[in-house]
Amino acid sequence: MKGVDQEEVSRRRGIYFQGFGIYGGLSGLYDYGPYGARIKDKVIRIWKETMLSEGNIAEFDGTTITHTQVLKASGHYDRFFDYSIECTKCHTKYRADDLIEKMGVAATLDKKWLQDKILELGIKCEKCQGDLGEVKIQKLMFPVEQGENLEPLFLRPETAQGMFVNFKEYYRFFREKLPFAMITVGRGYRNEISPRRAIFRLREFNMMECESFFDPKNEKWVREPDNEIKVTFLTSEGKEIKATSKEVYDNGIVKSQPMAYFFGLALRFYSKVGIDLEKIRYRQHKKEERAHYSSETWDAEALTDIGWIEITGNSHRGTFDLTNHIRSSGKDLYAQRIIPKREEFQKVKEIDYKKVKSEYPDISSKIIAAMKEGKTEVTIDDKNIQLDRFTIEREEKVVVDRESFVPVVIEPAFGFDRILYAILDHNLSSREDSGYAYLKIPYSISPYDAVVLPLMNKDGMDASAGKIFEDLLKSKFSVLYDDSGSIGKRYSRYDEVGIVYCITIDYDTIKNGDVTIRHRDTREQIRIKIEDIPRYLGSDPWNGKAN
Amino acid sequence: MKGVDQEEVSRRRGIYFQGFGIYGGLSGLYDYGPYGARIKDKVIRIWKETMLSEGNIAEFDGTTITHTQVLKASGHYDRFFDYSIECTKCHTKYRADDLIEKMGVAATLDKKWLQDKILELGIKCEKCQGDLGEVKIQKLMFPVEQGENLEPLFLRPETAQGMFVNFKEYYRFFREKLPFAMITVGRGYRNEISPRRAIFRLREFNMMECESFFDPKNEKWVREPDNEIKVTFLTSEGKEIKATSKEVYDNGIVKSQPMAYFFGLALRFYSKVGIDLEKIRYRQHKKEERAHYSSETWDAEALTDIGWIEITGNSHRGTFDLTNHIRSSGKDLYAQRIIPKREEFQKVKEIDYKKVKSEYPDISSKIIAAMKEGKTEVTIDDKNIQLDRFTIEREEKVVVDRESFVPVVIEPAFGFDRILYAILDHNLSSREDSGYAYLKIPYSISPYDAVVLPLMNKDGMDASAGKIFEDLLKSKFSVLYDDSGSIGKRYSRYDEVGIVYCITIDYDTIKNGDVTIRHRDTREQIRIKIEDIPRYLGSDPWNGKAN
Repeated sequence: MKGVDQEEVSRRRGIYFQGFGIYGGLSGLYDYGPYGARIKDKVIRIWKETMLSEGNIAEFDGTTITHTQVLKASGHYDRFFDYSIECTKCHTKYRADDLIEKMGVAATLDKKWLQDKILELGIKCEKCQGDLGEVKIQKLMFPVEQGENLEPLFLRPETAQGMFVNFKEYYRFFREKLPFAMITVGRGYRNEISPRRAIFRLREFNMMECESFFDPKNEKWVREPDNEIKVTFLTSEGKEIKATSKEVYDNGIVKSQPMAYFFGLALRFYSKVGIDLEKIRYRQHKKEERAHYSSETWDAEALTDIGWIEITGNSHRGTFDLTNHIRSSGKDLYAQRIIPKREEFQKVKEIDYKKVKSEYPDISSKIIAAMKEGKTEVTIDDKNIQLDRFTIEREEKVVVDRESFVPVVIEPAFGFDRILYAILDHNLSSREDSGYAYLKIPYSISPYDAVVLPLMNKDGMDASAGKIFEDLLKSKFSVLYDDSGSIGKRYSRYDEVGIVYCITIDYDTIKNGDVTIRHRDTREQIRIKIEDIPRYLGSDPWNGKAN
Repeated sequence: MKGVDQEEVSRRRGIYFQGFGIYGGLSGLYDYGPYGARIKDKVIRIWKETMLSEGNIAEFDGTTITHTQVLKASGHYDRFFDYSIECTKCHTKYRADDLIEKMGVAATLDKKWLQDKILELGIKCEKCQGDLGEVKIQKLMFPVEQGENLEPLFLRPETAQGMFVNFKEYYRFFREKLPFAMITVGRGYRNEISPRRAIFRLREFNMMECESFFDPKNEKWVREPDNEIKVTFLTSEGKEIKATSKEVYDNGIVKSQPMAYFFGLALRFYSKVGIDLEKIRYRQHKKEERAHYSSETWDAEALTDIGWIEITGNSHRGTFDLTNHIRSSGKDLYAQRIIPKREEFQKVKEIDYKKVKSEYPDISSKIIAAMKEGKTEVTIDDKNIQLDRFTIEREEKVVVDRESFVPVVIEPAFGFDRILYAILDHNLSSREDSGYAYLKIPYSISPYDAVVLPLMNKDGMDASAGKIFEDLLKSKFSVLYDDSGSIGKRYSRYDEVGIVYCITIDYDTIKNGDVTIRHRDTREQIRIKIEDIPRYLGSDPWNGKAN
């Protein structure tokens, strides 16, 4: 960060800011402003492109309001809560584990443990130094009232469940072949006890989740893990190594091949959106930290001004979710695998026509009809006839070549807001000479392609700038127009929000038909012809190609 | 529709379907599946591009959970409800006005009127013919419980309010110049009494809203209304004319110039996403139908199998929203206009230094210091001195060149789900010869660029198809791979979801290195070289350029 506070810059320049500011704001709810909304759109587009380019990943877009039965099956209804503790004096509320971890102690998520530890460490209220009260459970899902004695629904705490319950739709879409994955981009909601540091911990947040499905007997993605990008891996035993995704899979540090594959994919994505890979590490969860259903969990963490923060959670969910939804809904969420052809015998009961006809030649058809209806006895002409003795049992050969199974799931879940937090943290710095802030994000996620700046609002410069602006809009560039303040001031204004190119129209533009293009990072100014602007903007120093 | 039921096709093929199907579904909640999610993404991208290319429109991305104070100020808290009526026998719930309008009578939104009319028309329960009960008010906003005696928040019923409360952020962003507009794409929520016809009336829906701000003394957009596209305009007096947006503005049928401008912009957008403009009309609201704050409202309606449906509402909201938020928050949501320079005089009080010095030469500096502190009397050396008589009043000239005002708002609000409903309605039909369904949507919103089909899974055709598939993915085309079923069956499979190109790999591909490309609409098959595929897909018969 080098002395620049991203929260201050973001609020002042409209990247992000607390929602409903004119009404005093609401805790944990943040909005993306004119610059932030465009950066968000571009980051999400790059993520989708990264994922969908795999060829066996498809998109899902489900509702945020969620069926209560889904959340009962997933365990959220009963088990999704945090431990809160309140100051007895000023009533400020804290997450009990947050307070303990701030003391450098790893917290155990158990009510009694937390209560004892807070006493033992002598933790007081951060605001007024008052005594803290009792550790309580706070449910994290927001109920949505339907009214009129109807059970409330819930806002989804993650997008994942909507994908699990629609597994079968996508299984059919992919012509019943595994592996494949589903992705969803959208809102998630958690009634957080203490939202923190702007967009770091929100009550309404933006997720980009991926659920991938595998035959447990063949848990492999369609491609090999990346062997180029090296980052730090920190294992649950505290071992730290710098390696590629392929290396950590090959040497057994990461057990799941698809998980290792998704590491590489994510690293490519982080790099495209300007995250500094030197400040990325994969940290393995310890057993006690892992969700009970997960056999392997790795967090991708980014180093920022508030320490290492999780930006993507990678979890091996096993068959947990699909099994629960099968049990709870009674519906088929199985996949099928082809197995070597196998002959099996099954017993078949048949009517012994011969025997019927020989014993009852006159009424055989009536007896056979009764047997076909499944009766075990029948009365004909006052005669009671037991039917069982007219059946024969024989063995039939069947060829079995498929068997059903519950797929296992590996989930990389990306938190957009935290990724943006890391992007800003890694790219916002101040110039060594002037001290002015500038945001060195890649051109591909820059909120606008360029800004058009008439040097002055007279002598035809305004008209010429207006025409250049309109022509660029027509050529589908996203551009801003700004004629207020000195040129130097305007340059810094757009440096701060990461716009790469400023196009200045001056007296010479009118005479010679050329403009000054000034680059955000180098501050180099070159002179080019008006008609060359689109071609120039199209050349992206980071990614080869614009838009 | 020509005999094809979009709801059936959409459910079966994964365009859209009711949410939480394995748990029996939830009324009014629909999901977008593998094809629908991609179409949605593309339609929204085209909408954003259409709007942002104006150059003075910027994006906003706010939370769905909304501050209660915002909704009190906007009027939603008190006035956002519908009238419900329930069957006394089977308890099916209806919207009272729906029932009346189904009888061909225009409903008045008044409880007593509705109750009387239902009796008068003898309307019974549609399901069981039972008697209907009392007309009741049903609030349409979903409360979100925060827990612990906190007031509930609400899910936004429209995205508009988030933009109004942030007006000032965008006013600054646009260097304090009007007109400009903000857009938001996102979810809206309404606790509908009777959700209808799949995605036509939803409880969670997708909006694309635009709020444009004007000086009421200069209510003009930066460009002129379109004078090329003619559609039908139906005025509140029942007059029907076919005209361009410019014509209806010029002849006074549409009062607001920006509204006429947005008509043309919307028509260009509809046309890009495949809506048949012959099936579009603009219908003006009658006075009694209009929201109380609106001086002019026009609905863009599309003709579909369920009649004319509103796909975009265009409302002149006047200063209603900003005024209410100014009043309710006490904050400044004004804009300023430059006015002709005007000299005004204001009275200024000054210290009469001369008088002080002449009367109290020794202690003048103490007296002056006391006066500067704003005191009215002072005691120096036990002497009490009144200070008022040492001031002089004079008139000062000031130049006034700006004045504050509340901007007026014109809002085109697009309903994504209904736009998709119209797109499918206008483009889904059955072949005259085979009777098979096909979806003739533009390439630019087609869910995938192409499908790769090996004729058979042997003799190298699968390997060749696999390589073509991978190469297309690498060149950033979105492609599917399908090797199951006869070629004819596979063609129809992708016709139904609107994919334009099928690429077939056969024996000749192995020999000659060429493939068959088959077009969805013409069913023409041409033979091209493998290396020419990307160039071929890049040529879009509808829009000039792919991706």
